[in-house]
Amino acid sequence: MKINIPETNKPRLVILGAGFAGLILARKINPEDYQIVLLDRHNYHTFQPLLYQVATGGLEPGSIAHPLRKFIKRRPWVILRMAEVTGISIENQEISTNIGSLRYDKLILATGSKTNFFGQQHLPEFAMRMKTVPQALDLRSLILQHFEEALLTSDLDQRERLITFVVVGGGPTGVETAGALGELKKHVLPRDYPELDIRRMQIHLIEAGPRVLAGMSAQASEKALKFLKELDVNVWLNAPVKDYDGDTVSFSGTKTIATKTLIWTAGVIGALPEGFPEHAIGRGGRLVVNEFHQSLDFPNIYAVGDIALMQTEKYPNGHPMVAPVAIQQAGNLVNNLRRESQGRALKPFRYFDKGTMATIGRNRAVVDIHRLRFQGFFAWFVWMFVHLMSIVGFRNRMVVFVDWFWNYISFDRALRLIIRPFKK
Amino acid sequence: MKINIPETNKPRLVILGAGFAGLILARKINPEDYQIVLLDRHNYHTFQPLLYQVATGGLEPGSIAHPLRKFIKRRPWVILRMAEVTGISIENQEISTNIGSLRYDKLILATGSKTNFFGQQHLPEFAMRMKTVPQALDLRSLILQHFEEALLTSDLDQRERLITFVVVGGGPTGVETAGALGELKKHVLPRDYPELDIRRMQIHLIEAGPRVLAGMSAQASEKALKFLKELDVNVWLNAPVKDYDGDTVSFSGTKTIATKTLIWTAGVIGALPEGFPEHAIGRGGRLVVNEFHQSLDFPNIYAVGDIALMQTEKYPNGHPMVAPVAIQQAGNLVNNLRRESQGRALKPFRYFDKGTMATIGRNRAVVDIHRLRFQGFFAWFVWMFVHLMSIVGFRNRMVVFVDWFWNYISFDRALRLIIRPFKK
Repeated sequence: MKINIPETNKPRLVILGAGFAGLILARKINPEDYQIVLLDRHNYHTFQPLLYQVATGGLEPGSIAHPLRKFIKRRPWVILRMAEVTGISIENQEISTNIGSLRYDKLILATGSKTNFFGQQHLPEFAMRMKTVPQALDLRSLILQHFEEALLTSDLDQRERLITFVVVGGGPTGVETAGALGELKKHVLPRDYPELDIRRMQIHLIEAGPRVLAGMSAQASEKALKFLKELDVNVWLNAPVKDYDGDTVSFSGTKTIATKTLIWTAGVIGALPEGFPEHAIGRGGRLVVNEFHQSLDFPNIYAVGDIALMQTEKYPNGHPMVAPVAIQQAGNLVNNLRRESQGRALKPFRYFDKGTMATIGRNRAVVDIHRLRFQGFFAWFVWMFVHLMSIVGFRNRMVVFVDWFWNYISFDRALRLIIRPFKK
Repeated sequence: MKINIPETNKPRLVILGAGFAGLILARKINPEDYQIVLLDRHNYHTFQPLLYQVATGGLEPGSIAHPLRKFIKRRPWVILRMAEVTGISIENQEISTNIGSLRYDKLILATGSKTNFFGQQHLPEFAMRMKTVPQALDLRSLILQHFEEALLTSDLDQRERLITFVVVGGGPTGVETAGALGELKKHVLPRDYPELDIRRMQIHLIEAGPRVLAGMSAQASEKALKFLKELDVNVWLNAPVKDYDGDTVSFSGTKTIATKTLIWTAGVIGALPEGFPEHAIGRGGRLVVNEFHQSLDFPNIYAVGDIALMQTEKYPNGHPMVAPVAIQQAGNLVNNLRRESQGRALKPFRYFDKGTMATIGRNRAVVDIHRLRFQGFFAWFVWMFVHLMSIVGFRNRMVVFVDWFWNYISFDRALRLIIRPFKK
């Protein structure tokens, strides 16, 4: 079955994924040149950097999710369909999805990345992920459920296992999640559970490499480590995780921790649809592209953002998998498509790195802007401001502001809700 | 298995349900007199009057749900457990739940009401309910999904069936839901779906009796009917629903409407746990109580709110199943329990009716306060104010204010999100 889309005399350009890059492409590509089709499995855009705050009860999903149709409401030429891509036939220039198949003339992959377990067997079954809104909500419910369950048992080992939390991966997401759990332990849970001894709640951050925030400066890593310790987070470095069976995580050779909650933030891999030959795919499951975002093997297929592996002199292993890269690449591709249709020369992509930051609980953050490095309260303030301004939509910015303000003055997390799927 | 709760020398008082009544009881009953245990199946209190706004994308669940542990954080003596009650053994003074059994000395039912299908066979399977947060979220996703699906089909009958919505029941919930759908049709959906002819979207309100808002004045009913028609809602009166098979609803003898979405607000029944003998139960599945909220048959069992059938001269069929009754009954029972322990005489319950109101979309509402009756913009303003002030918690009030303000100035519903259960 074909997806019900009118045929026109313009070439059809299909964009897969409505993340940071996909949305820019859909909004900015010239509709005179192409019939533009955008596919995403959700009907909303997710502001991924704040997913961990949804998981820890600080924000509602609606504050970081934005309906896709709002983005394109003044662009009725963008044809948007909710669809899960199941594969691509490069030979037939056709995409297959759960709602039917679709021919393309040009294809832009903006599918981002997904959680990578590096071939571990049991982890996919038992570890919690945090790449989508439903996953973050599920984690929120699970954390709270484990506290409720801890009240029910008189077996102290089981109770401790229920209120022990292990975060794997010392990147920004892992550090921020562990920090948020630390804040819950310090300010929220002792008031909520006077029957439990919250001092027994343990938070572990396990990192395979020698430092946390390895992508940032040594100064930022050190300070982040200090901040985490102040929040009572046990940080394990040089500690690769071996296995997790839902009850016990083993790492660093023989070490084990008993826990019912393991949050995996240790790796991502390109979310590449099936159908590409192996020689087109590079490390991390990303599609190899030239500096014009074009697949080396298939010139009518482009890739931007996390899914694109663009190797340059400055980035021999590809660009970092972060939002600014995706945003800048999408912008350059939009311009190149316009240049192409005007018969002008294309411009190669150059990444302008604005800096990196991460927050570790209340009043604490680390910021690297080139040579400028600072940590602590001012860094935290900068982090808040930048993220607030990046959130899409006036309503969402207002609500996030209210929530952050409320969380700050009340030491509270208002959204400690266990909302589970509908049962009739 | 017994629920893990310490035995004390105080009599144990168990409260079932943390709605408007249950929360007042748990917070106000004197802990010197009783060990207080509160059970609810959710870890949050639901502000039911605004559930329909969650279902129609105007509010987030977190704005009308409030974590129960926040209510009791200064009352560490209240023992709260998340539990689904499966039955009561009156003989053994014991409650059974999904997390174990629990002995009680006194029991207060504050379990509210649940959807009643009056014995209809197919309706429970196909009709959407709106009594809980997960149900409201499920309905929100379904409404939006049906629009996305309508884009996929070229079969015009099927498309029309997908964008036809039937609300059954002309009470406040039904009227407010139909009005909210009318607003979506007028302001939101034409911008979201330029590919669909939104004029073909139909909204039907089917009521078995001769008028909508039968509990209010004739003037309010008439005006509500006029408001609904202005919002393009087809109202069917004297039209009992016969059947619904998921595709077609039949009503009023031979009439039918093809629809994929039927929202049932036509009736509720007391959510009475299993285990009561028939003679203790009155009409509507409610427990028969005297004016002191005490079961006529079992003096250590009380009931307040929707679940209680207290028949007085003024209310020979019991009190209306609305929040103010629940709140006032809970307050009176708290005082009577205190009076009892002090050896003072108990006071019978007297309901003070403050009035009724309902809103039908933007700028339109109807208000009855005894002889004072008004409709239109001022009524709408009063409705907004009263509901905003009734919402629990400063944060929630702020966020609802932001959302209403945003919805008003932008003619938008920001939360058009299809968030479906977690899939790994």
